[in-house]
Amino acid sequence: MRIRTKDIVAKLPVYQPGLSAEDVKREYGIDNVVKLASNENPYGCSVQVKQALEEEISKLSLYPDGASLKLKQAVAEQLQVSSNQLIFGAGSDDVILMICRAFLTANDESIAADQTFPQYKHNAEIEGARTIEVPLKEGKHDLEGMLAAITERTKVVWICSPNNPTGTIVTKDQLIAFMDRVPSHVLVALDEAYCEYVTDASYPNSIELITNYPNLVALRTFSKIHGLASLRLGYGIGHPEVIRSINQVREPFNTSRFAQAAGIAAIQDQEYVTHCKQRNAEGLGYLQEQCERLELRTMPAHGNFIMIEVPMLGKVMFEQLVSKGIIVRAGFRHYPNAIRVTVGSREQNNAFIQAIEQILLECKVDL
Amino acid sequence: MRIRTKDIVAKLPVYQPGLSAEDVKREYGIDNVVKLASNENPYGCSVQVKQALEEEISKLSLYPDGASLKLKQAVAEQLQVSSNQLIFGAGSDDVILMICRAFLTANDESIAADQTFPQYKHNAEIEGARTIEVPLKEGKHDLEGMLAAITERTKVVWICSPNNPTGTIVTKDQLIAFMDRVPSHVLVALDEAYCEYVTDASYPNSIELITNYPNLVALRTFSKIHGLASLRLGYGIGHPEVIRSINQVREPFNTSRFAQAAGIAAIQDQEYVTHCKQRNAEGLGYLQEQCERLELRTMPAHGNFIMIEVPMLGKVMFEQLVSKGIIVRAGFRHYPNAIRVTVGSREQNNAFIQAIEQILLECKVDL
Repeated sequence: MRIRTKDIVAKLPVYQPGLSAEDVKREYGIDNVVKLASNENPYGCSVQVKQALEEEISKLSLYPDGASLKLKQAVAEQLQVSSNQLIFGAGSDDVILMICRAFLTANDESIAADQTFPQYKHNAEIEGARTIEVPLKEGKHDLEGMLAAITERTKVVWICSPNNPTGTIVTKDQLIAFMDRVPSHVLVALDEAYCEYVTDASYPNSIELITNYPNLVALRTFSKIHGLASLRLGYGIGHPEVIRSINQVREPFNTSRFAQAAGIAAIQDQEYVTHCKQRNAEGLGYLQEQCERLELRTMPAHGNFIMIEVPMLGKVMFEQLVSKGIIVRAGFRHYPNAIRVTVGSREQNNAFIQAIEQILLECKVDL
Repeated sequence: MRIRTKDIVAKLPVYQPGLSAEDVKREYGIDNVVKLASNENPYGCSVQVKQALEEEISKLSLYPDGASLKLKQAVAEQLQVSSNQLIFGAGSDDVILMICRAFLTANDESIAADQTFPQYKHNAEIEGARTIEVPLKEGKHDLEGMLAAITERTKVVWICSPNNPTGTIVTKDQLIAFMDRVPSHVLVALDEAYCEYVTDASYPNSIELITNYPNLVALRTFSKIHGLASLRLGYGIGHPEVIRSINQVREPFNTSRFAQAAGIAAIQDQEYVTHCKQRNAEGLGYLQEQCERLELRTMPAHGNFIMIEVPMLGKVMFEQLVSKGIIVRAGFRHYPNAIRVTVGSREQNNAFIQAIEQILLECKVDL
């Protein structure tokens, strides 16, 4: 085979999807599998969405509106921004991809935390750019360290808040102090995939900040609190000129009709969002209490997931949990002794706590 | 605003979507609008698809299977290829994007026809590569010219057959003679978005050819004959090593659950494909006869669309047709006097012919 990709591409890790509930059912012969591995919404999505989709089923053969005009209007109205401050993608993954294609090339640099959502670095590398990874401090973004890492080659800084997988946030004061010192030609991409879950009063309203900092772009998604991971829909909010630049590299039909119709219904059902936020806060509180009872340290969690330190390799705990029908996430490079657990429904959270308690007891017996 | 994109990005044209049927209804006050502009399937999609989607509505909050395993199996079985010869994307647009991200960087070149699907050049440019545009000859790919354009910088050659917008094909003999002379390190991307419509016996079976030419990759789509443009699903068929390379840059969840479920149902309903192929052939025959009667020259059409030369600027004819409620495509750089018309249902084709006949008569009266 003489066909060769770009040098960097051959070295990229291929994404390894986690176990699905079906895999575990089949391989372990367990009927009742609880998946708390992908930060999906345990309550599904708004019933309004299902109604909106019914209409679209008769239009499968028609291309979507590439510009997502109606969706853009609905989201703009909800967020109180202008339509030209919004860009939609097939998940926020797609917005990350577009930012990299629009701004990064060989010799450029981007900056990210060393343990964060992997798609920033992955997409930057595909475009030939180097990503400087700044170590988290106690699970939190080290904004001073990130500022210090900025060079004349830096084009994009990625901040994930709540950070995946640690769950920590950057506060409003911290973000403002950071933005005040970031050179104005450096784009700061603030990934807020889990923002709707945050209850902490120190969490910033990024939309207000964009007015003062045109180099700030916020990324959001319909995959989490809106419960539409299946449909692939995310968006960016920013200064109209930044949005226009990202739009230059958008594929003409990058979101589906279903995604657009569902997005409109979902953003308009804020009652459902509030409902999910409250239930998530309850579930998160329960998991935190139970971890304390079990003497397991946790990271300060602000999204719909929690990072828990376990007294063994995270991957070992993962395997033990899977054998009991619970799927979580483990194998974090800088947190080898941690697992990341999605806040599920009450029943799912109970099942997880029962399973981990049993595993911990068995450990002690072994000693 | 000091934020600046890559140099090339600022110069890219932003995709201008065509008029939608709704636009024309609103702006022209016409109730019965016929859209023959996007090569959509006038018969919709298989009823099997709609059934498959019902099941997915209960799983909106769950991520799709990133690897599309079940869809891959279904398509592999239908096409009689191995699963590892297939890669799926959000439309073949996404497969084109992945090829560019995997293979092209600054200083590289790709080669395409000068009047073809614009996404090849667009995506290559975003990656910093130059695209050499080889003029079509009588609407057909000039494969000799394309061979002559190959340099040591050439990484990808794009061939669209049937070619959008001219509708012409590359024959099996031509393709083999071409592949025999293309250096084996150059990837040939053969876009066959409309292949299922072709009835001409000289049209190649690309899957057979891939066995002999591992540097050939065929691109196909569910947007055309399968009638699923709304869902964004396309795929590439190639040598397992080429597919693996493209997969390196695939976004983890680049196709939706709906797209995957619909794709399985659609590929398995070959009766529906055959039905659409036959009706398209009838419709195409009708349009060709009528154009002959109206003394309009046409390109030899092999897909579900036909390029027609009109006695005025294509854009003028476009406007006149729109005012009668018919939307077609015009404004082709190298074919300014042509329009591209999708083969519609019998009623749609009739409506188009009646409208264009009337416009032509009015022209003559004006003279």
